[in-house]
Amino acid sequence: MSPITASPITDLSSAAASGQRLLHWQIAPYLVPSDHSYLVTLLLHSSLNAKQVFLRAEPDNEEYLLPMTLTSAGAGDWLSYQAELPLNPAEPTTVYCFKVVTEDNQLWLDAAGESPHMPMREQSFKIVVGVAPPAWVPQQVFYQVFVERFNNGDPACDMAKGAYQVRHQGPVKAKPWGEPIDGDNPNTEFYGGDLVGVKNKLDYLQSLGVTALYLNPVFTSPSVHKYDIEDYENVDLNFGGNQALAALTDDMHQRGMKILLDAVFNHCSDTHPWFNRWGTQDSIGAHQGKHSPYYDYFTFMDPNNPDSEFCWQGSKAIPVLNLGHPELKAYFFDAPDAITRRWMQPPYNVDGWRVDVIHMMGEGPHADNNAKVLGQMRQAIKETNPEGYFLGEHFFENTRWTQGELEDGAMNYYGFALPLRAFLAKQDVNYHPHQLSAAQFDAWLRQTRSRTPYATQLCQLNLLDTHDTARFFTLLNEDEGLMKLAVVLLMTYPGVPCIYYGDETGMVGGNDPYNRACFDWDEAHWNHSLWRHYQQMIALRQQTPALQAGAYHTLYAEGDGFVFARFDAEQCCVIAINRSADRPLTMALTADFMAALSKAGQWSLLVGEGINKDGVITLPATGFAVWDLS
Amino acid sequence: MSPITASPITDLSSAAASGQRLLHWQIAPYLVPSDHSYLVTLLLHSSLNAKQVFLRAEPDNEEYLLPMTLTSAGAGDWLSYQAELPLNPAEPTTVYCFKVVTEDNQLWLDAAGESPHMPMREQSFKIVVGVAPPAWVPQQVFYQVFVERFNNGDPACDMAKGAYQVRHQGPVKAKPWGEPIDGDNPNTEFYGGDLVGVKNKLDYLQSLGVTALYLNPVFTSPSVHKYDIEDYENVDLNFGGNQALAALTDDMHQRGMKILLDAVFNHCSDTHPWFNRWGTQDSIGAHQGKHSPYYDYFTFMDPNNPDSEFCWQGSKAIPVLNLGHPELKAYFFDAPDAITRRWMQPPYNVDGWRVDVIHMMGEGPHADNNAKVLGQMRQAIKETNPEGYFLGEHFFENTRWTQGELEDGAMNYYGFALPLRAFLAKQDVNYHPHQLSAAQFDAWLRQTRSRTPYATQLCQLNLLDTHDTARFFTLLNEDEGLMKLAVVLLMTYPGVPCIYYGDETGMVGGNDPYNRACFDWDEAHWNHSLWRHYQQMIALRQQTPALQAGAYHTLYAEGDGFVFARFDAEQCCVIAINRSADRPLTMALTADFMAALSKAGQWSLLVGEGINKDGVITLPATGFAVWDLS
Repeated sequence: MSPITASPITDLSSAAASGQRLLHWQIAPYLVPSDHSYLVTLLLHSSLNAKQVFLRAEPDNEEYLLPMTLTSAGAGDWLSYQAELPLNPAEPTTVYCFKVVTEDNQLWLDAAGESPHMPMREQSFKIVVGVAPPAWVPQQVFYQVFVERFNNGDPACDMAKGAYQVRHQGPVKAKPWGEPIDGDNPNTEFYGGDLVGVKNKLDYLQSLGVTALYLNPVFTSPSVHKYDIEDYENVDLNFGGNQALAALTDDMHQRGMKILLDAVFNHCSDTHPWFNRWGTQDSIGAHQGKHSPYYDYFTFMDPNNPDSEFCWQGSKAIPVLNLGHPELKAYFFDAPDAITRRWMQPPYNVDGWRVDVIHMMGEGPHADNNAKVLGQMRQAIKETNPEGYFLGEHFFENTRWTQGELEDGAMNYYGFALPLRAFLAKQDVNYHPHQLSAAQFDAWLRQTRSRTPYATQLCQLNLLDTHDTARFFTLLNEDEGLMKLAVVLLMTYPGVPCIYYGDETGMVGGNDPYNRACFDWDEAHWNHSLWRHYQQMIALRQQTPALQAGAYHTLYAEGDGFVFARFDAEQCCVIAINRSADRPLTMALTADFMAALSKAGQWSLLVGEGINKDGVITLPATGFAVWDLS
Repeated sequence: MSPITASPITDLSSAAASGQRLLHWQIAPYLVPSDHSYLVTLLLHSSLNAKQVFLRAEPDNEEYLLPMTLTSAGAGDWLSYQAELPLNPAEPTTVYCFKVVTEDNQLWLDAAGESPHMPMREQSFKIVVGVAPPAWVPQQVFYQVFVERFNNGDPACDMAKGAYQVRHQGPVKAKPWGEPIDGDNPNTEFYGGDLVGVKNKLDYLQSLGVTALYLNPVFTSPSVHKYDIEDYENVDLNFGGNQALAALTDDMHQRGMKILLDAVFNHCSDTHPWFNRWGTQDSIGAHQGKHSPYYDYFTFMDPNNPDSEFCWQGSKAIPVLNLGHPELKAYFFDAPDAITRRWMQPPYNVDGWRVDVIHMMGEGPHADNNAKVLGQMRQAIKETNPEGYFLGEHFFENTRWTQGELEDGAMNYYGFALPLRAFLAKQDVNYHPHQLSAAQFDAWLRQTRSRTPYATQLCQLNLLDTHDTARFFTLLNEDEGLMKLAVVLLMTYPGVPCIYYGDETGMVGGNDPYNRACFDWDEAHWNHSLWRHYQQMIALRQQTPALQAGAYHTLYAEGDGFVFARFDAEQCCVIAINRSADRPLTMALTADFMAALSKAGQWSLLVGEGINKDGVITLPATGFAVWDLS
């Protein structure tokens, strides 16, 4: 690591120019609910010389410009204006923004920042009433477990070599833990990971700071990954069966931990008896004939061709289910013991669902009436447990699904993982080259945040990598410094962090199947510096409510430097990173922001290395720092 | 007008930098439909050194990166890439954008321009299948008539002094044509304008170039403006009654002209018998008692208070209708002779509806289920005449209503009139000061265009002013030069232009009621220079299909200068304005764009004053020019 020396400030004017003169955040004391309205506070910099200040609302889709009242001189050069915001009586979502009129012009503030004209609704501040996501979610640190490769806790349930043929792929193989993956036959290689193995490592996970698990699919399935389910009612016997899951969830709940399962309802395995079963006419699978009672569970593109079933991305192993079929609706969502509900009930009591390819689920082959289907799933979850977490998988933009009324949060590829991958690893999700300046990185993050209600922003599942991507450490060419910057952002950016198993020990691996290697439990092989960094950043997050639910504000975003604040009424953290591999970086923050929060005082360095001198901060090359300004 | 002299080019580098390196427009030959797909062409500048070029689609909400094929070297330094775009099978809307991968980075193109990362869906290119707006709309030049003040054609139906009391306001007055408006009692002053008067002026309107009328409300109503309707089944007798409307529409249709009426269904007059009528218990109005058969047509906020009816913006004259009531649904939309339908049938055959405060209509007082109500109205229009024009009034952003499936177009305040008002008149719709540079003006226009399907962009009703705003000429302090620039933009910007009666003669007037003065038919009082400019610009638009339906591309937008192109496969027009009152302006266009269209050749000046020298154009102060590059 390079020594820290205060280098000349190169771009003070431009950094200062990026400072906003209008400030509002959707936390107390800037936004406070009362009976049928919210008390809204705007901070306005006195240099604006405002003549009139308005809160703009549209409770019945028509504009209301509500005059705001100057209530206090505020801190420093800031003035504090307030108004009552009426809630929209006809819809759960109320939108608002601010208009300031000066002697000869006007300026607006919306969720994406300042604008020279009335903003579009899409980037208005949003309040959603009556459908809040679970309050426990932002308090967690999640850990994703690919069960077959995490830990073998019960050899009695190991796969026997050749126990069956994985169709389209050949006989299963039983391999010793940790042996290299065979890239040509990845889905037939069983190493023995199971749910007892997960349970046995709960102490380990808690020592890291993890409080919640997301498990890749666990239901009966012929493959290693189990995204091809043939029995939704039973945990795979190679994972230990239903009893192992009950024991795991029970132990976790006794520890105060949370657990999510993976819902793969868009498609099932072609070995599911709905699709493939010989028998009498009233029990044959859909593939065996049109008279199958399950024929309409699937879509055959050519009614005269039993091989024309509509499959997920053409893969014959996973025909797509028609979730408009009333029997499937009842089976998955509506019946008292529907799949969505039963695993959330005793003895399992799982705390929610991560839903696979959620945007593709539909009444028919093409995501038809997707929102309706998801509304039914949401209802099943919330009726079973109002605090259940409804998490959708979206590799791409999730805005349509995360406005509050459908998903509680999404796997936040588009709003976190992809910008981060471009900024630090110079690649996109397709492994195409992708370079972003800090300003472009900030703009992308801001764009996605501004489209999402604040409560939902806090429940977006942020991640660096998953079983569907190369490991982030590998994308970084195992650059430990950059990996640590990524972990800093993962633990401090709005949303709930999720660690892919083994990232904390420095596991490497390219894309599927190399990202699914056996966890190496030999600590001698671990990257201990990285592990301690994970533990330290997790602990910081867990001890700091402002990092879990605090407001967000960018303080600097240029070239290689990115600085932002997370804060609530009690505390303010400043998080800074310098991406440059070879140059320390000095960045002049917008002092006015600190003054607005009355936080111009003491800077205490919590983690990392950095110098602060009157709001001008210096970081070493590939450096980071987190300060407390309380 | 200042003399034209070529001044030094001040900002060539920045203008050149604004040139895009990826180009696509939603017209042939860049977008060509085939059976279940579209053939899509992207022009790519060779300086990009592209390694891979993709068309990005999401037909089932999942990303598909479709490789594009280099099909020709294109013109100049441009390369032409093509791919087949599959249409979304589950929704009428298909979205797409482009991704270009270079050696070390990537670049995207969406409907808002180039982006360093995958764009959000909201600004994707959109194709809507099966719900095209009427093809005749973009070919029109509309003219808005406030009937009471346009022309008195039949003195026999003039208002008699004191004929009735306008409730809340006093007795009606009959005033001589052209006498000054009394600002204190504007809605009781009748000057005698009527539908025979409109019919008598069709020759005049055609001499100006007008091809379509939008009439403010004509149904029976106590007020001057008639937004408080007491009988939806009869044209006001002071306007000449039903027969006068039939005669007008018949004459117009014989001339090949089109006509829209104003649908005021959100609320009715408090003098409508639904609301106010004494009689037997089965016929009393809602205000007379809870037993009224019409009680549930309205919403009483306090069931025990007959004065608690929910009114439009608190105005007791216009109680809001509950369009969720099945009888009102049938009356306005669903019945064979429903109001929406009957006026579109013989002997009236009106060509569509302009719908008042369309975003506020709902099943209850607060725009509840607004989209459902509007879907019913759309169905009524399209069942009666598939080519009927469904036009919504929106003072503010109309994106939610103009995605193709609801409105055919909106009164385009947000996407045209408001940006223009700020750019040229330095005011907003609330008469607050508002200044925009040409770059900000361009960004606002681009933002709104990019959210709207292309076919709908062409059917947005562009305007400078209406009966609800001050006259634009007055906002400009009667600056004729600036007014002419506004007219140039009105006639050339994407969308269908609409002229507020009398603007063409230089009528002045502040906000309501002064914007509703009697048309002065004494030609000696007209601004003939302005009139001829209107006529010339209208003629140009009518003779130039590229101005009606051609693609749009900004060529320069900085400071006071704004230049853009409208073009189709045959023709390209370049439209340029200089807002500066005292300085000529020289602007270097992005020559590459011209090369892409193979239009680098002959520039013919069609209207205005301007010099072109190899793509560097010079305009006089407050100047404009339109060139043909065919």
